Amino acid sequence: MIADTRTNAGLDNIATFKKLHVFEERGDRVVALATAGNLSISQSVLTLISEGFDANGDGTIQTINTVPSMFRAAQLVGQAIREVRRVDGESLEQSGGFEVQMLLGGQVRDGRLRLFQIYNAGNFIEATIDTPYLQIGEHKYGKPILDRVVTPETSLEDAQKAALLSMDSTMKSNLSVGMPLDLAVIETDACRVSTKRRIMKDDPQFSEMSHAWSEALRDAFVKMPI
Amino acid sequence: MIADTRTNAGLDNIATFKKLHVFEERGDRVVALATAGNLSISQSVLTLISEGFDANGDGTIQTINTVPSMFRAAQLVGQAIREVRRVDGESLEQSGGFEVQMLLGGQVRDGRLRLFQIYNAGNFIEATIDTPYLQIGEHKYGKPILDRVVTPETSLEDAQKAALLSMDSTMKSNLSVGMPLDLAVIETDACRVSTKRRIMKDDPQFSEMSHAWSEALRDAFVKMPI
Repeated sequence: MIADTRTNAGLDNIATFKKLHVFEERGDRVVALATAGNLSISQSVLTLISEGFDANGDGTIQTINTVPSMFRAAQLVGQAIREVRRVDGESLEQSGGFEVQMLLGGQVRDGRLRLFQIYNAGNFIEATIDTPYLQIGEHKYGKPILDRVVTPETSLEDAQKAALLSMDSTMKSNLSVGMPLDLAVIETDACRVSTKRRIMKDDPQFSEMSHAWSEALRDAFVKMPI
Repeated sequence: MIADTRTNAGLDNIATFKKLHVFEERGDRVVALATAGNLSISQSVLTLISEGFDANGDGTIQTINTVPSMFRAAQLVGQAIREVRRVDGESLEQSGGFEVQMLLGGQVRDGRLRLFQIYNAGNFIEATIDTPYLQIGEHKYGKPILDRVVTPETSLEDAQKAALLSMDSTMKSNLSVGMPLDLAVIETDACRVSTKRRIMKDDPQFSEMSHAWSEALRDAFVKMPI
């Protein structure tokens, strides 16, 4: 999973905010949550699932660290979104709308490694063999490269490369997406994040990759027949 | 200028419609108009500027073939959009919104070859040295390739290649953009379209280019260091 950190938080003029959050303290699970849309909704959801809330209205407090499966984790995030809507929804709809999208990926105990996209109504879909990647937020600029190289057979290393190049294309074409980037790689059955990287603006490795990709594209373009 | 022909005209289920229109009959001008957004607005605007209307409310009928300059042509298109809004705006706002965007390019007599983007309020901007290309409609998927290769120094041939590849990327990532494509190339001082091409789904030249570009991208991807 990869996320940028650019945000336009309006009056507060906050420009950088973490949008990729990892839960791995328990040892029996690793869950990564990426957020897009309204930052205050994202943060409220994050607080609810971290500290726990009565998701089912039966007096039981549940957190992302107590749910028994990834499916239940996705449900919990959806319920948290609905809880935030219950409290803040009306006011937010009056001033620009209730807008949030999330990606939730990970593994709980001996369950499968799963990836969900959660919508602002609290409903969700899962990545499948037909749709081996999911995107939220400013996703269009970075989609063509993913569509050309990502398949269910893509290695974790190539997927990482594709994610970085997709982000690079997006940042080149749209100012609302910007450095630093947060990257988290989760391997099946590891129950922890195996690679965690914060890529800063002047990261030499990323800059080299970005430059090499631009050169390769321009080379390919010049050689293309018309 | 390049445009696709895919449209979602709702109940009528019309799926293919020309969105790139050329005016060159007069010999003293060549004007190309590409449209995006609501098809009924586009067609009404097209009718108004072709058949003429009293744009300034002074009893004079003006058409795209009588205006003395490209600037005045852009104004006329803007005025036509406002005229359509005056008649249909209220009803359209009640059912989905008044949404239209246009690109207007060409040359009138000894004026400059100019390119304008016209918004749904009837206002417009012109392409400049800082923004050497303009896009309307589903523009994000195809922007990264343009951002990497198009500069004010780009040859007309390379610009054509870039436009085709940009459209190809968009069609690969988004089903709402589809074949056939219409392409029109206008050379300075020609006062006519020098290349006019309708590219059908099975166009061998385009297919070859699309395939070669995919191969080149995948090759470049495999060779990329991480």
